[in-house]
Amino acid sequence: MTDQESPENTATPITPAVPPVRPKQTSHRGRSVGPTANSNRESEEIPEFEPFMLMPRGPPPLTEYLDVWDVNMLKQAHEENKQRHHTNLYSSDYLIVRRAQEFLIKITFNRPFKPEQDKFAVEFSIGAGAQYSKGTYIPVFPTAERQSVWRGQILESSENVLTMGITPAPDCIVGKYRMHIAVVTPYGIRRTRRDPKLDTYIIFNPWSPGDSVYLDDEEEREECVLNELGIIYHGAYDDVAERPWNYGQFEFGILDACLFILDKAEMPMTNRGDPIKISRMASAMLNSRDDDGVLVGNWSGDYLYGVAPTSWTGSVEILLDYAGSGGQSVGYAQCWVYAAVFNTFLRCLGIPGRVVTNFFSAHDNNGNLKMDIVLDENGRVNRNHTKDSIWNYHCWNECYMARPDLPEGFGGWQVVDATPQETSDGMYRCGPASVAAIKHGQVCYPFDAPFVFAEVNSDLVYYTRSKDGTLDPVKVNTSYVGRMVLTKAVLDKGRRDITHQYKFPEGTAEERTVLEKAEEFGCQREKASVSQADVDVEILAQEVQRGDNFDLELQFTNHSSQQRVVDIYVNVKKEKVVVHNKDYQNKLVEQGNLNFIATGKVQETGRIVTAMRVITVHNPKLTVQVSGSSRVAEEMYVTVEFTNPFKFSLENVYVRVEGPGIMSINTKQYSIIGPGNTITWTESFSPRRAGTTKLMASLDCAALRQVYGEVEVTIEP
Amino acid sequence: MTDQESPENTATPITPAVPPVRPKQTSHRGRSVGPTANSNRESEEIPEFEPFMLMPRGPPPLTEYLDVWDVNMLKQAHEENKQRHHTNLYSSDYLIVRRAQEFLIKITFNRPFKPEQDKFAVEFSIGAGAQYSKGTYIPVFPTAERQSVWRGQILESSENVLTMGITPAPDCIVGKYRMHIAVVTPYGIRRTRRDPKLDTYIIFNPWSPGDSVYLDDEEEREECVLNELGIIYHGAYDDVAERPWNYGQFEFGILDACLFILDKAEMPMTNRGDPIKISRMASAMLNSRDDDGVLVGNWSGDYLYGVAPTSWTGSVEILLDYAGSGGQSVGYAQCWVYAAVFNTFLRCLGIPGRVVTNFFSAHDNNGNLKMDIVLDENGRVNRNHTKDSIWNYHCWNECYMARPDLPEGFGGWQVVDATPQETSDGMYRCGPASVAAIKHGQVCYPFDAPFVFAEVNSDLVYYTRSKDGTLDPVKVNTSYVGRMVLTKAVLDKGRRDITHQYKFPEGTAEERTVLEKAEEFGCQREKASVSQADVDVEILAQEVQRGDNFDLELQFTNHSSQQRVVDIYVNVKKEKVVVHNKDYQNKLVEQGNLNFIATGKVQETGRIVTAMRVITVHNPKLTVQVSGSSRVAEEMYVTVEFTNPFKFSLENVYVRVEGPGIMSINTKQYSIIGPGNTITWTESFSPRRAGTTKLMASLDCAALRQVYGEVEVTIEP
Repeated sequence: MTDQESPENTATPITPAVPPVRPKQTSHRGRSVGPTANSNRESEEIPEFEPFMLMPRGPPPLTEYLDVWDVNMLKQAHEENKQRHHTNLYSSDYLIVRRAQEFLIKITFNRPFKPEQDKFAVEFSIGAGAQYSKGTYIPVFPTAERQSVWRGQILESSENVLTMGITPAPDCIVGKYRMHIAVVTPYGIRRTRRDPKLDTYIIFNPWSPGDSVYLDDEEEREECVLNELGIIYHGAYDDVAERPWNYGQFEFGILDACLFILDKAEMPMTNRGDPIKISRMASAMLNSRDDDGVLVGNWSGDYLYGVAPTSWTGSVEILLDYAGSGGQSVGYAQCWVYAAVFNTFLRCLGIPGRVVTNFFSAHDNNGNLKMDIVLDENGRVNRNHTKDSIWNYHCWNECYMARPDLPEGFGGWQVVDATPQETSDGMYRCGPASVAAIKHGQVCYPFDAPFVFAEVNSDLVYYTRSKDGTLDPVKVNTSYVGRMVLTKAVLDKGRRDITHQYKFPEGTAEERTVLEKAEEFGCQREKASVSQADVDVEILAQEVQRGDNFDLELQFTNHSSQQRVVDIYVNVKKEKVVVHNKDYQNKLVEQGNLNFIATGKVQETGRIVTAMRVITVHNPKLTVQVSGSSRVAEEMYVTVEFTNPFKFSLENVYVRVEGPGIMSINTKQYSIIGPGNTITWTESFSPRRAGTTKLMASLDCAALRQVYGEVEVTIEP
Repeated sequence: MTDQESPENTATPITPAVPPVRPKQTSHRGRSVGPTANSNRESEEIPEFEPFMLMPRGPPPLTEYLDVWDVNMLKQAHEENKQRHHTNLYSSDYLIVRRAQEFLIKITFNRPFKPEQDKFAVEFSIGAGAQYSKGTYIPVFPTAERQSVWRGQILESSENVLTMGITPAPDCIVGKYRMHIAVVTPYGIRRTRRDPKLDTYIIFNPWSPGDSVYLDDEEEREECVLNELGIIYHGAYDDVAERPWNYGQFEFGILDACLFILDKAEMPMTNRGDPIKISRMASAMLNSRDDDGVLVGNWSGDYLYGVAPTSWTGSVEILLDYAGSGGQSVGYAQCWVYAAVFNTFLRCLGIPGRVVTNFFSAHDNNGNLKMDIVLDENGRVNRNHTKDSIWNYHCWNECYMARPDLPEGFGGWQVVDATPQETSDGMYRCGPASVAAIKHGQVCYPFDAPFVFAEVNSDLVYYTRSKDGTLDPVKVNTSYVGRMVLTKAVLDKGRRDITHQYKFPEGTAEERTVLEKAEEFGCQREKASVSQADVDVEILAQEVQRGDNFDLELQFTNHSSQQRVVDIYVNVKKEKVVVHNKDYQNKLVEQGNLNFIATGKVQETGRIVTAMRVITVHNPKLTVQVSGSSRVAEEMYVTVEFTNPFKFSLENVYVRVEGPGIMSINTKQYSIIGPGNTITWTESFSPRRAGTTKLMASLDCAALRQVYGEVEVTIEP
């Protein structure tokens, strides 16, 4: 078995009983064979000449064989490749094409190509240790007789120039490939030298039925793959607020930043053709928890050492900071920031993606379908023992893909969520979970369907806690959680209510069946039948402008014939509250919403009454205006204006403005804006490309957040 | 909202819009509320007196109220608690009982208990921040009117002594609980001081229908929960070898070591009632990869800095080393060591477990159903491009549990595997995967079913690799992989072939259907129809004693009418091989098996012929004898004897001997044993308990491994 002494030590895998010859190499690798390639950045030298036999007298005379003089990747934005592959918007010096669709290259040889005698292959390789069996090395052949997993054909041959069509496999690895041309001679293989200019990005292809991210709807593709302009919904389901976002997936450096995230996660190259694995990995990597991912979460109100979550106007700055710093996590994010940057990642790689907002989102942390709110014996919320949480809203992502790993019918939109809530199988990540599976209570299929199911279907259960620490259910509200799920409609047609995609209508037979189905898979619900109180309380809605004082009005309805006396608490403060500006001014920092909970006890019956309402406090707007000739590469100006409407000064105010394709991020700080004072800020910019887009601006300071403005701009060529 | 200024900062979860008052506390915690308890070792002070109201004049006169003088946990091995709960074998000073089954305690008060006026609770708590809603704090009440999730009742009350029955919930957390008795007075709650002697271990209960690990077969429970003596199968499917193993799950300190592993993994306490989560976590923690787990894998043949995998005789030494060192990984393991220690972990915590051996186990590393063996153009194995591996055998574990997270029919035996092969969702771990799901090709259910399915169902596909790097299938063998799955039969009834539990018989209609079903879930197979060669080759079986030379005989069958000339390679060495002792002596270190692969090419037809066979080389045995009076606590002697049958000396020879319940591990080293020399080693021991058990011994050195001996011993009380 002398051959085992050869440098090839992979004898072990085939004959494990026989120990490998070079122990040190394998001793810490368990049963895996060789290091697994997990970086797109890693490269390797491929020999320019690979002899077939020993050649004592040095290299042979190869003059009579084909020699490559030039290769043209046809990679300009206006050229056919990027146009046909819907990649012309990417700001990049490289060829970017999609899987399962032909692209063209022109090869110039030293002489006309002779099909009958000349043999060559266009070789693509990615990562280190490239191999055909791993899909990291793919030779593409020009002749029909000999084909590899990527189709190749000669489309045109005039004199020395050959136009070749190359079709990457529909499931090929997504990333940046190296490219060589290898000419086969009787003596050996002669290759072109590595030339970075020939590097080619191959990404997902929602336009091709062969690709597992195929989305058969042009309007949806325009929105969920190509649209850089976003709208994110927040506030209250009965008073929805919205804010703009610049996804900027085509901005310079963003595609590289997305691939950097895969490398930072040390994701094996062999997994990088699978949108299921890539989206799950990204849901873990976009938050910094447990893997030094992209964004640091912060709900504290203290953002001294980073950017306030409300201050960002887009994803570009965040992704470029992260990649540019070699993977230093960026501060700070809350749910909509995680979702917006995740959306950029998905669209940039070619996976259809959208941001959705779930109003009254349950964050269940013991895997059941109950949000436990614990009251003390007087009916007052006992915050020390109330551990589950309800968010007035929560944003996550949907991405579109087939699910070959699941039975029929669970492909399509999948929930992924990068906001760290609970660990999934040991890491902070969530999904992809099939929306169809959630709607039908089929929560047994990976990944994390039970958690998402709870976010939209949990019951609100009020308990009273007795002195000895035990809990008794006193009220159950089944209609509160998952009240409405919204996403942006395609092509600026406003909002789109997709609640019905997550659940059947409240109170229908289907809804009951689904809940029972989910229970079969271990989602427990509160079964105790709780007798209703004969008194109802409701918090009345009202429109509140920031800075106004307002009365919070509670309306009681007595269904009984006798008098009822109710001890009522609102957010733990007793009886009817007049909410003064000073009270909430420094409370509703993040999202400009006040979430009121009224709980109490009817003296005569001892029954518990409860009510909840989110009141959105409306903020002043920023005005954004543009001037100058609206032509590509010509100078234009944007003016951002704001007047402080309050009786107090605003301090350390940050203003941001940016616009996809026309203006990268600009920031300005004002140390103070006095009461009634107005600031006016003008910046110049020159549009990079034609078309209709937007400039988006934000104003942010500790006392006033969530102030936005935008203006639409149409640029002529 | 002044109350928010109170130390309770859990205002945030209920009203996320309002930022928490004490930022620093939450700013890095994403949306999780407070730190999650993840250590059983962590404790906390509970106040001995918990006042209900302010008491300006210091503590009140509690003399008239119930006072606890003594608590008796009835925890002796002979007492009914441990007898009824099948925990009498544990060598431990604490009470160890199982879930969903009543155990008894005796409480002595300062005076007789008066049901109508006296109020008390037996409080159990586990980990830090114990809470009723999290299942980490459970008060147990004596009266039927007032009950918590754990049932309590008074069984007997004579004078000051109360006998109370306590039934832990069937899904309660498994681990070590603290216990207090709390008397409720009008002034407040008065508690007994923390007393470690009252600490109680609660483990899984295969005897209770309420527990999700319920196993309805007494013989199976005796074997898979209570048996400390193991047999592990290895070698070749047509020449099976076996070795003994001391699981030692009841030895002193093992239960604590198992709980230490959960703590080392920082597993949230709330998950520790779920055998699915616990077995998955353990499959990750029992190997050292990516989590500093228990065992370091080593297939190198170089074990200088640890114990050779073949040298271990049981799990006890390994688990105590790991826990004793605070979590320093122990060297070295191969598959059977991982499986054996995992089995100890399962049985110790009360989860039915067994070790299984799969002969010809596929290790597929690109998620398809093909084991790729790449041949060069002459039919010789190209080890540089053959990345998948076939193990002549592989050991993993099965554990028995319900799968409420899956549809009906997938509970029962589940595959878990701690040997690091491929990462599952980011970590080296595997399972639990339902054996029923694997048999029926339902590989869409978690966890890792596709990988296990491939281990028993892969096809062996031979490719030839052409110069340009592409591969063409030339031969497919569908019956080679997963040839036989064995486990120990219950109660020493020898071997048990459970292959049929993993797959339908070769060639049946069901088998085809299952493979198609698995393909639906993305397990690809080789479809190319490969024309058979008209020449067959077979490696003939033979019985080989270590030290013998032997001829490896190949038998060729020519199905054609013409002459055929075959170039044949055996493990890369050309033509018919005479295998001399010196050739293999230093090759078959680990498992005493030689795995031969013959591949070649028929000159006339260019077709590929292949054959594989594992030849087990049989080792000399160790003789183990006992003498002395076989009574508990009386002195006995064990004598281990071995004669070197070879013509060469054995150097640095390690001998180990141990026996569950009677003798803990003893080791002796011999620097040299000359040719023909005999060593005799006698050790004294005194049995800890009565019954029939075994002493097991191993002898191990670089030139000779896998030498075992055992003797059965019956100890009288």
